[in-house]
Amino acid sequence: MAYNLAPLQNLIDQFERMQGIGHKTAQRMAFYVLGLSDSQAQEFAKAITDAHTKIKQCKVCCDLADDELCPICKDNTRDKSVICVVEDPRDVVAIERTHEYKGTYHVLHGAISPMDNIGPDQIRIKELIARLGSGEVEEVIMATNPTVEGEATAMYISRLLKPMGITVSRLAYGVPVGADLEYADEITLSRAIEGRSVI
Amino acid sequence: MAYNLAPLQNLIDQFERMQGIGHKTAQRMAFYVLGLSDSQAQEFAKAITDAHTKIKQCKVCCDLADDELCPICKDNTRDKSVICVVEDPRDVVAIERTHEYKGTYHVLHGAISPMDNIGPDQIRIKELIARLGSGEVEEVIMATNPTVEGEATAMYISRLLKPMGITVSRLAYGVPVGADLEYADEITLSRAIEGRSVI
Repeated sequence: MAYNLAPLQNLIDQFERMQGIGHKTAQRMAFYVLGLSDSQAQEFAKAITDAHTKIKQCKVCCDLADDELCPICKDNTRDKSVICVVEDPRDVVAIERTHEYKGTYHVLHGAISPMDNIGPDQIRIKELIARLGSGEVEEVIMATNPTVEGEATAMYISRLLKPMGITVSRLAYGVPVGADLEYADEITLSRAIEGRSVI
Repeated sequence: MAYNLAPLQNLIDQFERMQGIGHKTAQRMAFYVLGLSDSQAQEFAKAITDAHTKIKQCKVCCDLADDELCPICKDNTRDKSVICVVEDPRDVVAIERTHEYKGTYHVLHGAISPMDNIGPDQIRIKELIARLGSGEVEEVIMATNPTVEGEATAMYISRLLKPMGITVSRLAYGVPVGADLEYADEITLSRAIEGRSVI
């Protein structure tokens, strides 16, 4: 069904482009927008542009940040000698929810996946290596997803780091194999951090 | 989980306010926005403000319109002697999908519901009565939802219109009782239009 009003159809299309949003949901969302007051609609539109323009990558860990550094890299109480390497900013949120981990992070923004033409240069490995030059870092915990790509990325990075005399560990297989780290529950993630093993 | 970046959290909140959108979906949608290019994000935000500012109500039928009149009221091939009364603009779309109905519409924007403090003055009944003054209209088809509120609205309007000598009919109970007109399939809706009865 095509709506015969261009501005409405355009908005429905915008919503429908999102992963997991079907036509009916997109239509419902568009009607939700029409039902907002003028100021609410302006705020909604502003939230989109704001999130897009104000959020950058942290200069140190490549996590999302609204400043030069992300809140975790700015925090002096965090243990700078440990770096937890994850694929995605959402994984940082998942691990922070455990309240168990006090080190810092490094966000790769992806995993090595030759099938999708993603090699080591397409993810933030160079930035990770650069952080290790100061000699401050003692351990790198590989917390990439427990998938083929995540495992391959962990192995690749561990081989780069071992000659540098840095301990490289991997999350314990408390996280269910094949799943997405983002959806792991707090207890499973805590166990996985506790039981991490040297690779 | 609260995200510690205000612009991101704000966007997640905006999405989460929509009916049927949970926290995980809202978060996924916000990350979708972060992944857009600058121009795509601008377009998305513009689609929201555009839909909101450019779409008004048709002066005749109260359906959504991007002009004084909606495309159906502008269309001279539509039979102006029949008005199909619906609760919501989405119901117009549902009936148009049947390609069976060639008359015009009137959108009430709700149904009489004393429980929700919606009386006859809160929906577009006055506007419907105003259209009947010209004597051009011969039949009004009540296509409000087959719910208690929809039925009550249909009865209320039919009592107003009968003294004016206008035929008032009601959709046949082809539409499943208690359901939402928006989700009826084309055939059921076609049957319901064909089998309409005088009330």
